[in-house]
Amino acid sequence: MIKTFTYKELMQLPSRYRGQLLNKVSGLKPANLIGTLSKTGQTNLAVFNSVVHIGANPPYIGFILRPTTVERHTHENIKETGVYTINQITTAIHQQAHQTSAKYDRSISEFEAVGLREHYHLDFPAPFVTESPIKIGLRFEEEHYIKCNDTRLVIGRVEHLQLPEAAIAEDGSINLAEQDGVAIGGLDSYYSVDLLGRYGYAEP
Amino acid sequence: MIKTFTYKELMQLPSRYRGQLLNKVSGLKPANLIGTLSKTGQTNLAVFNSVVHIGANPPYIGFILRPTTVERHTHENIKETGVYTINQITTAIHQQAHQTSAKYDRSISEFEAVGLREHYHLDFPAPFVTESPIKIGLRFEEEHYIKCNDTRLVIGRVEHLQLPEAAIAEDGSINLAEQDGVAIGGLDSYYSVDLLGRYGYAEP
Repeated sequence: MIKTFTYKELMQLPSRYRGQLLNKVSGLKPANLIGTLSKTGQTNLAVFNSVVHIGANPPYIGFILRPTTVERHTHENIKETGVYTINQITTAIHQQAHQTSAKYDRSISEFEAVGLREHYHLDFPAPFVTESPIKIGLRFEEEHYIKCNDTRLVIGRVEHLQLPEAAIAEDGSINLAEQDGVAIGGLDSYYSVDLLGRYGYAEP
Repeated sequence: MIKTFTYKELMQLPSRYRGQLLNKVSGLKPANLIGTLSKTGQTNLAVFNSVVHIGANPPYIGFILRPTTVERHTHENIKETGVYTINQITTAIHQQAHQTSAKYDRSISEFEAVGLREHYHLDFPAPFVTESPIKIGLRFEEEHYIKCNDTRLVIGRVEHLQLPEAAIAEDGSINLAEQDGVAIGGLDSYYSVDLLGRYGYAEP
């Protein structure tokens, strides 16, 4: 049996039910931790499932920022310092990563609260996650205010990239299953992955 | 051994190598087919790995549009008709989905070219993919031009949602592994998924 919903029917659903459903129908999401530092030197770490590739030449990455307490700390810190880190969530740390979504006071570092370690690279003033095999340092580039629901697209330029040399194939590719990568469903479900196949540039 | 790259070092890499690397470091991506109809009634279908949840209340979904031939047909059709569909890619159809990325002439329907079937729902004037268990019909809502690299964020409001009744848990959640969902790495790698765990709302 196929269940169908119109816009009107979706809007009449209980709010939590609609949230569960609509957060999951758009498919599997990337699993990343965004690390920032406040003006006063306090670190912050938050799980994000909305990181999106913007371009490789030059290298830009975006993410969607919701007007929640947790994500607001990240946004405030990016505004203050201009920089942030994106760190891969693996099966090994996915439960700690999820725990960063709790509403900690801004005076508490989620690194300490969930038991992940800060890593600093050269003089880049934002904390990376030691346990993440793929670590990206970004500088804020541009932001778009999404009128329809008061969210933002935040875009940064990749300033630093760190990953295991053995993870990079000869052509620059990475097998994300070998790197223990995780995908997210909605806001609460975490999935391990297995490579089905890698395909060449498609020709008509 | 950890390999590190600065922005400058990334920009000096050969273009294809940099593309492979940077398309993969941001993590696993959702796997969807976007279906559209041109003014003259020609259907179009294209694989997208950049769909991003914008909000559930009201229900909005976005995607990043690159200035390529393949994605331009999708954009032109959305501009012409105001509507489009987002359809889940499963392990069963992931190779056909990848084949839609070939540069077919606008006069050729990728549905026919790759062997997927068109499904129409009520009077909604855009084609869904019969083989996709989760089918979403959207109406264009807003668009943001991304200055740094000439791409766009396109946002639509969910007008129609169709999925198997048995896929929806009592609380509105969906197990995407049970729905045979696929995640994408970069532009060329497809992954199956297994549920690691589903976790409650995190508390400090």
